Amino acid sequence: MPETAPLHIAFLLYPDVTQLDLTGPAQVLSRLGNVRLDLVAKTREPVQTDAQFTLLPTASFAEVRRTDILCVPGGFGTVAVMEDAETLAWVRQVADTAQWVTSVCTGSLILAAAGLLTGYRAACHWASREQLTWFGAEPVAERVVFDRNRVSGGGVTAGIDFALALTAAIRGEAHAKFVQLSLEYDPAPPFDSGSPERADAATIARYRAMVDKFAPGRADKVRAIAERLAHAAPPR
Amino acid sequence: MPETAPLHIAFLLYPDVTQLDLTGPAQVLSRLGNVRLDLVAKTREPVQTDAQFTLLPTASFAEVRRTDILCVPGGFGTVAVMEDAETLAWVRQVADTAQWVTSVCTGSLILAAAGLLTGYRAACHWASREQLTWFGAEPVAERVVFDRNRVSGGGVTAGIDFALALTAAIRGEAHAKFVQLSLEYDPAPPFDSGSPERADAATIARYRAMVDKFAPGRADKVRAIAERLAHAAPPR
Repeated sequence: MPETAPLHIAFLLYPDVTQLDLTGPAQVLSRLGNVRLDLVAKTREPVQTDAQFTLLPTASFAEVRRTDILCVPGGFGTVAVMEDAETLAWVRQVADTAQWVTSVCTGSLILAAAGLLTGYRAACHWASREQLTWFGAEPVAERVVFDRNRVSGGGVTAGIDFALALTAAIRGEAHAKFVQLSLEYDPAPPFDSGSPERADAATIARYRAMVDKFAPGRADKVRAIAERLAHAAPPR
Repeated sequence: MPETAPLHIAFLLYPDVTQLDLTGPAQVLSRLGNVRLDLVAKTREPVQTDAQFTLLPTASFAEVRRTDILCVPGGFGTVAVMEDAETLAWVRQVADTAQWVTSVCTGSLILAAAGLLTGYRAACHWASREQLTWFGAEPVAERVVFDRNRVSGGGVTAGIDFALALTAAIRGEAHAKFVQLSLEYDPAPPFDSGSPERADAATIARYRAMVDKFAPGRADKVRAIAERLAHAAPPR
């Protein structure tokens, strides 16, 4: 590894996170070189993910007051976080001095609820993307979106593309290519159903029905959060 | 979710696993429907991964004596597992009655050391793939390889392709497409450096130098394990 500046990465960890939103980028970014990575939650107790296992925080909010790269993953737990003042306050605090403020999937909605995407272009999970407009952010239908020091990935697996692009921005393209080869990232999806533009109507309908079943009223809740924020005092 | 047969999935968890080898497939397979997923290790103590965080087992070897789907991930910890009789015995035991015996990345070498790939075609991380021949397995340079009830994925990120293909084999193509859409798996790698056929020579050389530095003599150790096994009595 050539000499590189030390970096700290903080991933926000919260209940019902989509674990691959976090573990995909964590795999890539752990190979930045001279990097320390933390999974940060309210406490160090295990945090339940959406995939039937927990993740163990490496630090609590109180232990991480600054970071170089903040990364906020998404998941069904997003809405609860958007309503949680303690978590939003931590996100704002570390974002304030971070070099890079980033998100994957519906993690973008958490950044938006923290007031951190107002006036920024951002990616998000396709099914929630338009909700960014309620927070004054501009949704973009791309896998990876850079806007000044905000970097965001689309839904779940886009976190890998996002993290490789961020690696290139930080350590250069040659290093990103090295990480890509190490992870044999030469994807070959067995089907062509990974976006609403490519999936068939029945598959899209089935996805929307699943969300309605497991997270009823989700969009309404997000809209209500946005409306409350619009009438609230600025976050700091 | 339509009525589907219940399934149990057991992921082998061990120190220095490449966590995305496990967490990628776990994300996909957790969406099989009517599924219970376990991360199984020697004990329930946290297990260090390669990415600066631990994974917490959901069960110990003693607690899981059967499974429907066994999945063995890879990583720098592979060689130690290949030398560990207790782990290999557990792998053999659960594989014996599993419907599907699977691996990702260098997890294929663990299955091979357990005697479970002799006479089978299998995928593996590109840099270790040829080592399968030492165990009587046939290496295949593909992202996903099915051979009877053995299913294997190539390096790290191939675990996502592998898990979608396995999802289709178990629950049908429509379900796999639904999971793919839910994970927005429409990959767009920012560079074309994900396989040794596509990466440039300097990148390949840098990868090999990294392995030599962090896992010196790795190939020699694997070969020695294979030679010992060739002289050993059959595993059962």
